[in-house]
Amino acid sequence: MDNNSKKSAELISIGTELLLGNILNTNAKYISEKLSQMGIDVYYQTVVGDNPDRLERALELAKTRADIIITTGGLGPTYDDLTKETIARDFGKKLVMHEPTKEFIEAFFKKVKREMTPNNLKQAMMPENSVIFPNKVGMAPGCAVEDDFGKIAIMLPGPPREMTAMFEDSVMDYLAQFCDSIIASKTIYTAGIGESTLEDTLYDMMTTSTNPTIAPYAKEGECILRVTAKCKTKEEAERLIDEAIEKVKARVGEYIYGIDVGTIENAIVTLLKEKGLKAAFAESCTGGLISKRITDIPGASDVFDMGLVAYSNDVKIKVLGVDEAIIREHGAVSEECAVAMAKGIYKLSGADFGIGVTGVAGPGQSEEKPAGLVYIALWDGKEVKTRRMNVSRTTRGMVRLFAANYALDMLRRAAQAR
Amino acid sequence: MDNNSKKSAELISIGTELLLGNILNTNAKYISEKLSQMGIDVYYQTVVGDNPDRLERALELAKTRADIIITTGGLGPTYDDLTKETIARDFGKKLVMHEPTKEFIEAFFKKVKREMTPNNLKQAMMPENSVIFPNKVGMAPGCAVEDDFGKIAIMLPGPPREMTAMFEDSVMDYLAQFCDSIIASKTIYTAGIGESTLEDTLYDMMTTSTNPTIAPYAKEGECILRVTAKCKTKEEAERLIDEAIEKVKARVGEYIYGIDVGTIENAIVTLLKEKGLKAAFAESCTGGLISKRITDIPGASDVFDMGLVAYSNDVKIKVLGVDEAIIREHGAVSEECAVAMAKGIYKLSGADFGIGVTGVAGPGQSEEKPAGLVYIALWDGKEVKTRRMNVSRTTRGMVRLFAANYALDMLRRAAQAR
Repeated sequence: MDNNSKKSAELISIGTELLLGNILNTNAKYISEKLSQMGIDVYYQTVVGDNPDRLERALELAKTRADIIITTGGLGPTYDDLTKETIARDFGKKLVMHEPTKEFIEAFFKKVKREMTPNNLKQAMMPENSVIFPNKVGMAPGCAVEDDFGKIAIMLPGPPREMTAMFEDSVMDYLAQFCDSIIASKTIYTAGIGESTLEDTLYDMMTTSTNPTIAPYAKEGECILRVTAKCKTKEEAERLIDEAIEKVKARVGEYIYGIDVGTIENAIVTLLKEKGLKAAFAESCTGGLISKRITDIPGASDVFDMGLVAYSNDVKIKVLGVDEAIIREHGAVSEECAVAMAKGIYKLSGADFGIGVTGVAGPGQSEEKPAGLVYIALWDGKEVKTRRMNVSRTTRGMVRLFAANYALDMLRRAAQAR
Repeated sequence: MDNNSKKSAELISIGTELLLGNILNTNAKYISEKLSQMGIDVYYQTVVGDNPDRLERALELAKTRADIIITTGGLGPTYDDLTKETIARDFGKKLVMHEPTKEFIEAFFKKVKREMTPNNLKQAMMPENSVIFPNKVGMAPGCAVEDDFGKIAIMLPGPPREMTAMFEDSVMDYLAQFCDSIIASKTIYTAGIGESTLEDTLYDMMTTSTNPTIAPYAKEGECILRVTAKCKTKEEAERLIDEAIEKVKARVGEYIYGIDVGTIENAIVTLLKEKGLKAAFAESCTGGLISKRITDIPGASDVFDMGLVAYSNDVKIKVLGVDEAIIREHGAVSEECAVAMAKGIYKLSGADFGIGVTGVAGPGQSEEKPAGLVYIALWDGKEVKTRRMNVSRTTRGMVRLFAANYALDMLRRAAQAR
């Protein structure tokens, strides 16, 4: 690799809400991670408020330290959105109306039958001679502009959904011109194995392999491994990565629910679709979270018809047909109740798998049934499988997240066995 | 307020893992929020790697822009932990052994029966004449040091648990000497009004009012206003804030679902509980998201017994009792179907409000029924209310989020009218 041609980037995140500590700077993390994967070095990240003087000073400084300056925020319609104005002035460019954006904004307001206030057109004013990055999620496009000395400023919107969509749709392609080696990575998703067990089992590979690297990747409630290679060509990188993945599979294959699948719900929808199977959920403590996660996935309707949130005992009895005696004798938080819920939703939905989840997310715990105790049952018409989960010392949200993960992992294993 | 005595602070977060995008900078958010509450202004946050030269440059710059420099990270035992060394050199201080910390570290290793490697004692070397902040969670203490020109550097550990415990235990007391005014703020939550309309309606207040300030606050899919006052006393600040909130209410009161309530689901659970009412949801395109959001709130079981995810026509007909003819004639994505779903879940659950949601989250759109088209109906046993939502050019996730927000807003209005 030719180090002389290697470019460095610097991030400037713009927004008073960041300086006030109202929001987390997820944009800086996202962009830094992408740039690192592309082999572009980042030595500084700066946060400034919606203040043109301080932005200009941060910009001047960044130009002395980096080749590419990437800003997020300040592209919106309001009076304190001043990123384009400030950078254009600093880079000696005029702002000109970008007609396609203007037309898009006007059409949008016509369509939703709302009057367009004039400030909305500010979002269509772009620095002259800039590369425009369309915004498929929101209204304000992003852009890249180069000054007379070859310094580049890339301006991206602040809302994370808009920024990430734009980054993946267009900014990565734009940045590719500055990269002279290829970084590729694949992600191994596991469920049902603890982080330290996973690390212990793969310790030698994780510490000695340098190309590709194999590293754990933190995601709440899940154990994920990222395999990353840096090579001259994409093909070579992928070959190295695939070889490493095979080695990982040989050791922990049963816990792996997919490569690059993103989420377990994504893997499940694909798996059920392939096998022509359907699942239905009867949820108590997870309150709809499992159905919600399955229906997050486009095409979920092929594998999912029905979910029931049975939050009260009455609904468990009347709608799901759980025997009153089960709840009287064992309580609603019991293996017996989970099984009856699984059988109830199986019958009601006509799906191939019925899953019942009941537990204590907290508050409302007792000594006997502490927060974090959850029972999960899966019924396929012939056989019942159950699982007891007990995660203590955590939050209501985490109990629900883990319970949903456990239930989805049971479903994944049952569907794979078909 | 005496402006001459007002101190400003600047944050320097140290850690290569931040520049690589491996972790989120939660420390910067936490400290900024605390400083904002204490009335200490923050104009810049900077992130640098574990590199003493770049840290020194960031430090030199920060001294020209702020009175107090707060660093996180680089206090550990390893060779690349160089914060104290770098700052001590820059501030003209020697590092000296802090005996109580030395004893604490030695005792720790004795207790866990592990041999102490010498680098661990690096954590006990502190700049001379510094104020020491004990670490109750980890090993490395923090400290504050002042240079000959009155500039102050506060060094805190990087691990968030250690940093936040230290901040609350000792750093806030230390910082109190620099505060001579109180900052208080309240947040106004709205639903059912667009950001630009809200801003247009309140433009004069937002641009002319300086104490309190009234500023929009970005949160995905919601319009939120933050009202912030800075005064000698908390009582005075709250009086100014409450006066401003009353003025905002006079203009856009019907869209406000709460002050400082956090989320609309939180406001609804509180509201329904107060009025002794219950709600039930029949969800198609939102797939369980509404039930999930309501059950995110502790105590939801007082106001919520049942949710049904009716993803297929068959479930809408057989379980909810939607007339087949409605779906045949109007389609599942229609006002008529939403009404029948609302009535069906009302009857099935015995709740006071039944809400039906049906729409196209995408994919699967047609010209007649585009992605983003959602019908919502609310039935209270006597009267039906409906709403048609059409959000185009957005993601499946956003359609679902907006649809859930709309449905929750309808429920909020209906419950408030009781």
